[in-house]
Amino acid sequence: MNASEFRKKGKEMVDYVADYMEGIEKRQVYPDVEPGYLRPLIPATAPQEPETFEAIMNDVEKIIMPGVTHWHSPHFFAYFPTASSYPAMLADMLCGAIGCIGFSWAASPACTELETVMMDWLGKMLELPETFLAESAGEGGGVIQGSASEATLVALLAARTRVTRQLQITSPELSQAAIMEKLVAYSSDQVVATLGTTSCCSFDNLLEVGPICNQENVWLHIDAAYAGSAFICPEFRHLLNGVEFADSFNFNPHKWLLVNFDCSAMWVKKRSSLTGAFKLDPLYLKHSHQDSGLITDYRHWQLPLGRRFRSLKMWFVFRMYGVKGLQAYIRKHVQLSHEFESLVRRDPCFEICAEVTLGLVCFRLKGSNKLNEALLEKINNARKIHLVPCHLKDKFVLRFAICSRTVESVHIQQAWKHIKELATQLLQTEKE
Amino acid sequence: MNASEFRKKGKEMVDYVADYMEGIEKRQVYPDVEPGYLRPLIPATAPQEPETFEAIMNDVEKIIMPGVTHWHSPHFFAYFPTASSYPAMLADMLCGAIGCIGFSWAASPACTELETVMMDWLGKMLELPETFLAESAGEGGGVIQGSASEATLVALLAARTRVTRQLQITSPELSQAAIMEKLVAYSSDQVVATLGTTSCCSFDNLLEVGPICNQENVWLHIDAAYAGSAFICPEFRHLLNGVEFADSFNFNPHKWLLVNFDCSAMWVKKRSSLTGAFKLDPLYLKHSHQDSGLITDYRHWQLPLGRRFRSLKMWFVFRMYGVKGLQAYIRKHVQLSHEFESLVRRDPCFEICAEVTLGLVCFRLKGSNKLNEALLEKINNARKIHLVPCHLKDKFVLRFAICSRTVESVHIQQAWKHIKELATQLLQTEKE
Repeated sequence: MNASEFRKKGKEMVDYVADYMEGIEKRQVYPDVEPGYLRPLIPATAPQEPETFEAIMNDVEKIIMPGVTHWHSPHFFAYFPTASSYPAMLADMLCGAIGCIGFSWAASPACTELETVMMDWLGKMLELPETFLAESAGEGGGVIQGSASEATLVALLAARTRVTRQLQITSPELSQAAIMEKLVAYSSDQVVATLGTTSCCSFDNLLEVGPICNQENVWLHIDAAYAGSAFICPEFRHLLNGVEFADSFNFNPHKWLLVNFDCSAMWVKKRSSLTGAFKLDPLYLKHSHQDSGLITDYRHWQLPLGRRFRSLKMWFVFRMYGVKGLQAYIRKHVQLSHEFESLVRRDPCFEICAEVTLGLVCFRLKGSNKLNEALLEKINNARKIHLVPCHLKDKFVLRFAICSRTVESVHIQQAWKHIKELATQLLQTEKE
Repeated sequence: MNASEFRKKGKEMVDYVADYMEGIEKRQVYPDVEPGYLRPLIPATAPQEPETFEAIMNDVEKIIMPGVTHWHSPHFFAYFPTASSYPAMLADMLCGAIGCIGFSWAASPACTELETVMMDWLGKMLELPETFLAESAGEGGGVIQGSASEATLVALLAARTRVTRQLQITSPELSQAAIMEKLVAYSSDQVVATLGTTSCCSFDNLLEVGPICNQENVWLHIDAAYAGSAFICPEFRHLLNGVEFADSFNFNPHKWLLVNFDCSAMWVKKRSSLTGAFKLDPLYLKHSHQDSGLITDYRHWQLPLGRRFRSLKMWFVFRMYGVKGLQAYIRKHVQLSHEFESLVRRDPCFEICAEVTLGLVCFRLKGSNKLNEALLEKINNARKIHLVPCHLKDKFVLRFAICSRTVESVHIQQAWKHIKELATQLLQTEKE
């Protein structure tokens, strides 16, 4: 395929994408397929000779789409949102074309420098303490990781390196293994200090845990994977109070800030605590500026060596929405979750199971876990909307997460009506 | 931005991408910018109000492009190739639109199932032993990781889990810490058994190391990050002989097989050795099929929870090139590296420093390391081509890697002429 064919097929793909997004509401949100459905539909080996774009696109509709769970359907209320916006998609096209691997400053200076500045932009949107920003005179800065799991692992390894080095100085008689045996990682049942847990979007009290960590010289990593995006709104910023005690902080713009996956934003107070843990300097990656102290080589901040030009997505999204547009988006989702909450509260058969702070409503039928399991099964079997459950204090609970960029009040009302009908049927059957 | 605006802007972006790729040869391959160039060119904070697509695209040409190292320029011979092809870019557009997060089968069945089948396709293209394939009656299978580093870490953790469990059975008196202290990871100076090292593309002898690992019950992980793509050609397949002794094998189609970053292909002989190490089963990720034994939940195979629909890129590339097209691509690159090799060999001032097997030529001026450092500096300062060095047995060596999809004999000839001229100037100056 040459450039002129790409001009043609690329535009066809743009139309396919726009058609898909425009028509997504009419597709069944959760697929009917059974495990193993796909293998019989495609050949057992790759073709020897080239096939046409048209043949593949036919198969997309015939083979792929019937097995897709449509995360961006306004009928999708499962898990947490995953971001999707047109500006991010446009930026990703550009990212794919430039196709640089930004493991060092020299490997593509724009890739590194835009990332550093975008992380400052985002840090300021969250009103992060200045010590986390790269533009401050301090030692902090931000980096895009692939996922919150990676950010947590990076923080854990940096913490281990820091404490190991301290112990090697204060107790030189200890072997590496003896030091390892002494190390303790404190965690809640969600692993690290968490703002907005996955189950019910609850919040740890950083103002309690933070000062203790600082006093005891314990590395404090805060994970606000989902909730973090909300902190760009002044009315939710208080949930982040205490971040000043943290050594590292992370949230996922790829969840709720319209920047398509993957884009997990991580800040540290001391850049050197990361680079000290990961430094990798073979000759083929060295370049003339690296010891100047002026530049960032992001390979020292992460597990993988390679990295895409992901900050382009942030740049496109932040500029094309503006901070006000992003705030409006968050507020709309929060408002929709409260709309659903009040529908549930008005119904005496149901109960709300956790405080609704952002875009997640945890609810259940008053009654047994078995009853609620049956309700969820009915909901997901009907395929009109899609939900997943969680356990809260041994109770089986249904999670209703506001997910889609295009979800509106009408979808919330429809979803509730549907849930209510299925619950009525279920309670009727129970009585009989 | 709504769908109809996206139709318009998306097509403009397709044209921008095509223009960029068509004109890349005329851009300076390595940028002139100094560290910190970008920050003064953009505002210190994100805009409050939305900006236009046009404003951003103007800034792409004005602010981003001057700081880009053009990895896909036919004048780029640094590091290793990173894949770029139009079919992969088309697939990535579709991947962005579907935007599912395939952490479990249920989260998007097509995402999981296409990946399993594509890894079988690719495994067959490499003639991997059947035990590594998911379609065999055995326990093996493949997974797409983000990078070879992640694959190595995953293998290491799986190996640790396996041996720890064995020791807990055979020596129940040992504490977890005592077991940890006993563990040993053997590695070469490239970490694990490597086919195609980064410095000079050398190969470990698997037929020697493999049987010993099997005999001693040591997990053998093989990393062929760059070279692996070549094994789809029968004439290079012998380099993979001995893979039958491995527990896990990994290479990067995102380097040399035209599948844009990120796509690191990893196979294991026993799926359960990965899922045993990573299993993560909160209620909100459970689904009705997961205990059926029929399905794959890829979150148990990797570090991050989230994952994109990356197998679409493989599917598009394999079908639109066909196996023959991919083989032709590899062969062309190998031929070009031998063309460069013979130019070097014909010149008595230069020497070849390592056997040229695939697409990398390691060469130097006969003489001191200082002389060769000066030559590399001259080459990279001239900005006409871009190379990076390596150390081979204390010698400073220049690496000439065939990288771009569009590189032709004429670029090799130009590059050599240019290197030769700079070397002549340098030797002249030395004499004076």
